[in-house]
Amino acid sequence: MSHEKNILDELIEEIRTFAQARDWEQYHTPKNLTMALAGEAGELVAELQWLTPGEASPDTLTLEKREALVMEMADVQIYLLRLADVLGVDVAEAVRKKLAINETRF
Amino acid sequence: MSHEKNILDELIEEIRTFAQARDWEQYHTPKNLTMALAGEAGELVAELQWLTPGEASPDTLTLEKREALVMEMADVQIYLLRLADVLGVDVAEAVRKKLAINETRF
Amino acid sequence: MSHEKNILDELIEEIRTFAQARDWEQYHTPKNLTMALAGEAGELVAELQWLTPGEASPDTLTLEKREALVMEMADVQIYLLRLADVLGVDVAEAVRKKLAINETRF
Amino acid sequence: MSHEKNILDELIEEIRTFAQARDWEQYHTPKNLTMALAGEAGELVAELQWLTPGEASPDTLTLEKREALVMEMADVQIYLLRLADVLGVDVAEAVRKKLAINETRF
Repeated sequence: MSHEKNILDELIEEIRTFAQARDWEQYHTPKNLTMALAGEAGELVAELQWLTPGEASPDTLTLEKREALVMEMADVQIYLLRLADVLGVDVAEAVRKKLAINETRF
Repeated sequence: MSHEKNILDELIEEIRTFAQARDWEQYHTPKNLTMALAGEAGELVAELQWLTPGEASPDTLTLEKREALVMEMADVQIYLLRLADVLGVDVAEAVRKKLAINETRF
Repeated sequence: MSHEKNILDELIEEIRTFAQARDWEQYHTPKNLTMALAGEAGELVAELQWLTPGEASPDTLTLEKREALVMEMADVQIYLLRLADVLGVDVAEAVRKKLAINETRF
Repeated sequence: MSHEKNILDELIEEIRTFAQARDWEQYHTPKNLTMALAGEAGELVAELQWLTPGEASPDTLTLEKREALVMEMADVQIYLLRLADVLGVDVAEAVRKKLAINETRF
């Protein structure tokens, strides 16, 4: 049995601390955070918009493009965890619940 | 020192297993996964589009709306982790790198 | 010289009338309308997420998929024109201004 | 009876000419254009993400923010019309068809 926090809880705390240090909690309403997440998802999809499937395959992506994707993925993850923090949602539990639902659907 | 997988690695494996069982890996190209993630981000932001800030606050959300949000958050997380798996990206490391960059920017 | 309204102005009026008849103008704030538009853009991109480029080409799309795309495109257009109405923006003028800017950039 | 093109057809032609002059038609597949549109919709929603409803109201938006919104709206419109061109879709007809469907739903 472990008493350690899992990595998602650790990240949530680090992101919360970052926001608190800048007095940004006032902006982090559910509506605003979903807008921010949608904005970052838009930046992520835009990174690959003009690449052919071949150019955008995991093995052929340039290092520069790959790093750009990683940073956009981080932004999406940051806002998702910030929203989870604000709403008190356990993301891992939610993922497993959704997978279980999808098991019965597909 | 721990030899256990962290929760993100566990979820990535569970999501991969789900995809493999349905022979869906062929569809999970980087382009397609960013499209799917953008679609789910759109569903997430749409959940709150007509609510006032008051109605959409963490304390006043209806249980039904809250559960809808949790399921859309799960979908975003699933596609983000699937993309991380396909690209071989360590999401936690990416989040910490982005937070460090943001420290210098803000 | 023509005194007729152009088609964009006609559509803006029809969309406004639709909203007024349902007392929806109260919901149509700039923030909410950009959220709604992002949601519809997500539905549009999701329509093509699992299709190969070949399956998603203009000539090979199924009639059913094509009609689904047309309806999502309509939704994006409706919210864009509703936002233009609320903000008093001339969309055609904006498009031509942006094209002129792009002429100097590319 | 008028033989003139309507404004949407004019814009579609101007956007097509712009793309042809840069040899960009090869990139303008349906999948890629929906990705580009989702990216621009993300930029549009991001413009208002941290504003209060009061700050984001039509009357109180700063001129700078307003102009930023107009340019993002133009980008969304450009990709929507480019997609309509590629697919051979009549956007005005689609909007009216969708409004008629919505009449029966709401």
